[in-house]
Amino acid sequence: MSQAATPPDSTRLPDKTAPDSRFDTAPVVEFQPLGRRAALVPGQTILELAESAGVGLEATCGGQGVCGKCKVRLEAPADPPDAAELKLVGGSAREGYRLACRAHLNGGGRVWVPPESRRQQQVILTTGQAVESELAPALATYDLRVPPASLGGGQSHQERLLRGLEETTDQPRDPWRAPLDLLRELGPALEAQAGRVGVVVADRHRIIDVSPGWGAPCLGLAVDLGTTTVVAFLHDLRDGKPLGVKAEMNPQIVRGGDVISRITHCQENPGGLAELAGLARECIDRLARAACAEAGVAPERIFECVVVGNTAMHHILLGLDPTGLARAPYTPVAARALEVPARELNFHFAPWARVIVLPVCAGFVGADSVAVALATGADRVEQPTLIIDLGTNGEMILATPEAMLCCSAAAGPAFEGGQIRWGMRGAAGAVERVTVDPRTLAPSLSVIGGVAPLGLCGSGLVSLVAALLRVGALSSMGRFQVEIKGPHLRQGEDGVEYLLAPAGASGSGQDLTLSERDISQLQLAKGAIHAGAELMLRQLGLERVERVLLAGAFGNYLDPRDVAAIGLVPLTGGESLEGVGNAAGAGAIMALLSRRQRRRASDLARRIGYLELASHPQFHSAFAGGMRFPAGGVPGGDD
Amino acid sequence: MSQAATPPDSTRLPDKTAPDSRFDTAPVVEFQPLGRRAALVPGQTILELAESAGVGLEATCGGQGVCGKCKVRLEAPADPPDAAELKLVGGSAREGYRLACRAHLNGGGRVWVPPESRRQQQVILTTGQAVESELAPALATYDLRVPPASLGGGQSHQERLLRGLEETTDQPRDPWRAPLDLLRELGPALEAQAGRVGVVVADRHRIIDVSPGWGAPCLGLAVDLGTTTVVAFLHDLRDGKPLGVKAEMNPQIVRGGDVISRITHCQENPGGLAELAGLARECIDRLARAACAEAGVAPERIFECVVVGNTAMHHILLGLDPTGLARAPYTPVAARALEVPARELNFHFAPWARVIVLPVCAGFVGADSVAVALATGADRVEQPTLIIDLGTNGEMILATPEAMLCCSAAAGPAFEGGQIRWGMRGAAGAVERVTVDPRTLAPSLSVIGGVAPLGLCGSGLVSLVAALLRVGALSSMGRFQVEIKGPHLRQGEDGVEYLLAPAGASGSGQDLTLSERDISQLQLAKGAIHAGAELMLRQLGLERVERVLLAGAFGNYLDPRDVAAIGLVPLTGGESLEGVGNAAGAGAIMALLSRRQRRRASDLARRIGYLELASHPQFHSAFAGGMRFPAGGVPGGDD
Repeated sequence: MSQAATPPDSTRLPDKTAPDSRFDTAPVVEFQPLGRRAALVPGQTILELAESAGVGLEATCGGQGVCGKCKVRLEAPADPPDAAELKLVGGSAREGYRLACRAHLNGGGRVWVPPESRRQQQVILTTGQAVESELAPALATYDLRVPPASLGGGQSHQERLLRGLEETTDQPRDPWRAPLDLLRELGPALEAQAGRVGVVVADRHRIIDVSPGWGAPCLGLAVDLGTTTVVAFLHDLRDGKPLGVKAEMNPQIVRGGDVISRITHCQENPGGLAELAGLARECIDRLARAACAEAGVAPERIFECVVVGNTAMHHILLGLDPTGLARAPYTPVAARALEVPARELNFHFAPWARVIVLPVCAGFVGADSVAVALATGADRVEQPTLIIDLGTNGEMILATPEAMLCCSAAAGPAFEGGQIRWGMRGAAGAVERVTVDPRTLAPSLSVIGGVAPLGLCGSGLVSLVAALLRVGALSSMGRFQVEIKGPHLRQGEDGVEYLLAPAGASGSGQDLTLSERDISQLQLAKGAIHAGAELMLRQLGLERVERVLLAGAFGNYLDPRDVAAIGLVPLTGGESLEGVGNAAGAGAIMALLSRRQRRRASDLARRIGYLELASHPQFHSAFAGGMRFPAGGVPGGDD
Repeated sequence: MSQAATPPDSTRLPDKTAPDSRFDTAPVVEFQPLGRRAALVPGQTILELAESAGVGLEATCGGQGVCGKCKVRLEAPADPPDAAELKLVGGSAREGYRLACRAHLNGGGRVWVPPESRRQQQVILTTGQAVESELAPALATYDLRVPPASLGGGQSHQERLLRGLEETTDQPRDPWRAPLDLLRELGPALEAQAGRVGVVVADRHRIIDVSPGWGAPCLGLAVDLGTTTVVAFLHDLRDGKPLGVKAEMNPQIVRGGDVISRITHCQENPGGLAELAGLARECIDRLARAACAEAGVAPERIFECVVVGNTAMHHILLGLDPTGLARAPYTPVAARALEVPARELNFHFAPWARVIVLPVCAGFVGADSVAVALATGADRVEQPTLIIDLGTNGEMILATPEAMLCCSAAAGPAFEGGQIRWGMRGAAGAVERVTVDPRTLAPSLSVIGGVAPLGLCGSGLVSLVAALLRVGALSSMGRFQVEIKGPHLRQGEDGVEYLLAPAGASGSGQDLTLSERDISQLQLAKGAIHAGAELMLRQLGLERVERVLLAGAFGNYLDPRDVAAIGLVPLTGGESLEGVGNAAGAGAIMALLSRRQRRRASDLARRIGYLELASHPQFHSAFAGGMRFPAGGVPGGDD
């Protein structure tokens, strides 16, 4: 078993040995010095061809022929440049340089991409892994100088602004639209600095801000609205750069720690949904303010916010009735990506800011899973890959080059320390990693905060069980091997137990132990995950996966070797296991920074099939089998 | 001088003698039995071809291949029908019937249009003339049966609705969008009547209402927001039929009778704009409620509202600062057509109803003039035509087949009875028509309400002056011919005056008279109109117009012969003069009933040039000349 060192790479080189029928019939364009190829598609710009070849070019203006950043040198026949393009390309036109977003090739050949024209990749750092994201947001900013009104018709403030936009962007002015509120302030805005204004435009034609002066920031917020934790990532949408991250416990927790109890709260209290919606909205607004304060920017300059969350969090945030999610046929109200004015959610952002909620797959597989699929590139895998987002529920995606399937396994609270005698959250005093001496069974503990141990958090529990399996102290059925003697295995209240820390060494002043009952809780949790993965494999007719990606903060804390040792998922040996950090947050950021990634998220939500576990005829037998540990903690051994 | 008997016709037959270059190169399609022709354009449907030939076909579904109403019989080569079309055409497919919105011709030939497939034309009756309007609204209604949710992925309420729409309309479901409020109510709406719902869709993809049950009305309101009078026309948008008309005095009148005094009110009072906006909005809302109550429908079923008004009324309604309209360079805030959620204007319509405000031409030529241009077909005239909308201001459009020009002449209040000693509004007791005995100069009066005369309204004033000119009692300079003796011409306080009714016969118990000072007020008013028309003629290099259309309620009350007799506009004799009623209201209705007419309005606003009179170097001399009456009330005589 090897742990892959490279992060998931969404810009992987195409497999050159695989035949591609497109290349049989059309001339081939080579992008150099990168060595990527695309089949010529008549009518496509070089920019579009480059994209299809996986070559990201700079196009700050979104390919509108304005920024002049996508210069490439052609060694291929192309249509002649027009005056506007020649102006932007400047003197280098003589050397064969063109704008990729304007030029169309008439035949095959080579396109040389200078380094400065390659797209600026944004590295997203969440709680662990780095994910690269392209920068092509749905918002564009323009700094204009609008000439004053003159006597005669057609000189409305609106018209002067549109004329300015037309001249700057070279887009015809007719499709541009501005909301009434903005028109009301337009006269003073155009007067304040002698016509110098900054304009923010959404989706190429919706004018959502006109402010006096140039260079005002244009901010975006990506939010991972988890059942337990809410994380907000603030980004500058002009260059994609991260400006700050803020996290907070989900305040809805006062109405229940899990999704079902919150749905029940909505069902049983007339104002319950409004209350929980308000808590989530205030939390996001607070995180935005905090992140802006730290970065020295105004939350009123946030123009777009992408939110991901499980289906219940998604519904509650939007004020959509979540009660259908808790009873058959488990019907969400809405599953598609939604766009909502930010003020409808009481966010104190720019007046015309909008909130984009990514699509959900099914009642129990939410927008967070879609974001995980986006960040991990589930639609671009080259080998069967299992992606697990471990939280209160285990949401899993099985991806192959041909198909994608998802399911949600009710893992229960064991992975978060629930139902475990000495279980606790991953806070100071939690044992997070354990090794066990194979001869004496003496433990060696790694404790969060370096204090005396108080209890076991999820990763500590998995680590301990894995260690006990490896040294042969625990059977595949989860029973202690009582023939092993020593001071660490003993008879306790709940049967045989393992002494992790005696009262004198523990932070609670009591013996810190792990009982067979605790272990069976872990087995229940891992049995559900294992069964879900196994049934998905069967559904796609697969024997095994090649890669396992562990997403979610918790997935990131787990040692992949321990995951393999306890047999969380079906393994036959040789699989690569890796933690990918807060992939849901990374996916939300990708969708914030790129309209194309947003479309890709919708495409993923549509393409990922859903496997309903609760009603699956083989679920119970798979669950029972999945509770077994691999003998000796060796994957494939007794699994 | 002849008065044309036919109303303005926007579906005039093309001139068959004129060569049309399109027919030289493309096969010709004849629409029978109508005898219209179109050049075949590859890729166009028969429906589109028919439109270009001026043949209106029924297409309740907006040409989406759903309603099956545009059946035509082909005697021309066409692509084969698909299964969906065959189903809608039914048995008549064997006889060569096709759906015009689906079939494409491959060559020239004949298309037979059965009477039931011709588009239902809506005859708009406003205060006078009838205008025909096509029915192709921006809103479509669908009655669907949405199947219940089943276990498995992708079965959100939203998805089930979209699937239902896709099946009914055969439009792909991806572009459909619904606002969050609507999604919140979707579950209950789908459950209420076992999935039977009525759906209202705007612009082909924006779902704006889902209500339980079938057949709910879909209403639209067209509003003519005049400075003096507000008129609201309620229509059923499914069949275009008028459901009622309500009118009210513009309540803003408490803050000034004319546009300038209301703008001044906004300028001088901090809350002035909000106050006037509120008055206009409440008035429209009240008219809508009254019209709905009378028709027995709910105002909450109004989904679209088209408003026209002069630029000041337009700005004030929308809460846009109107003060720029009253000072050079007379800059409107916004001139283009705007779309505003109805609730932003506090209208109690459907939650997602919208208000469409037609575009304005310039600071003094508003959306009402654009609507007049639309209703009178200014863009389709075949001869030079002068269109006058006579209100507090005289807004005029000079249209030729090649160009359109507009101007606004400050006529002052004389046409509304202002500044005239015995002037009054057109209410009971107002003299509205006068004839004068050529021998005795004795008047014969027509009084509104058949009561004793109280005063002269605008049309009565024009009628009296015209009569006095005809009998030679008044010179072209507006002086009484004092050599004429008799009891009706006498010396009064303000010089010579004409006795219209002695104290004993008048309703006020005082002599009802017309003085030379009164006549000079009318000369000032008509001088401005005459000058505007004359300068527009000069600008377009024209000697004369062939038609004069008098729009506006007042224009309709005027006898065109009197208009000619006082020389309101430059006439050389032989022109056709006709009243066209509330053309602004008719234009608003046309825009309400047809998305294409709405686009045409924007096109008109863009194409109509603006002639600024106030700063025109020749205005003063033209104005002075325009004050003269035609000698003997004969147009062209001394004009």
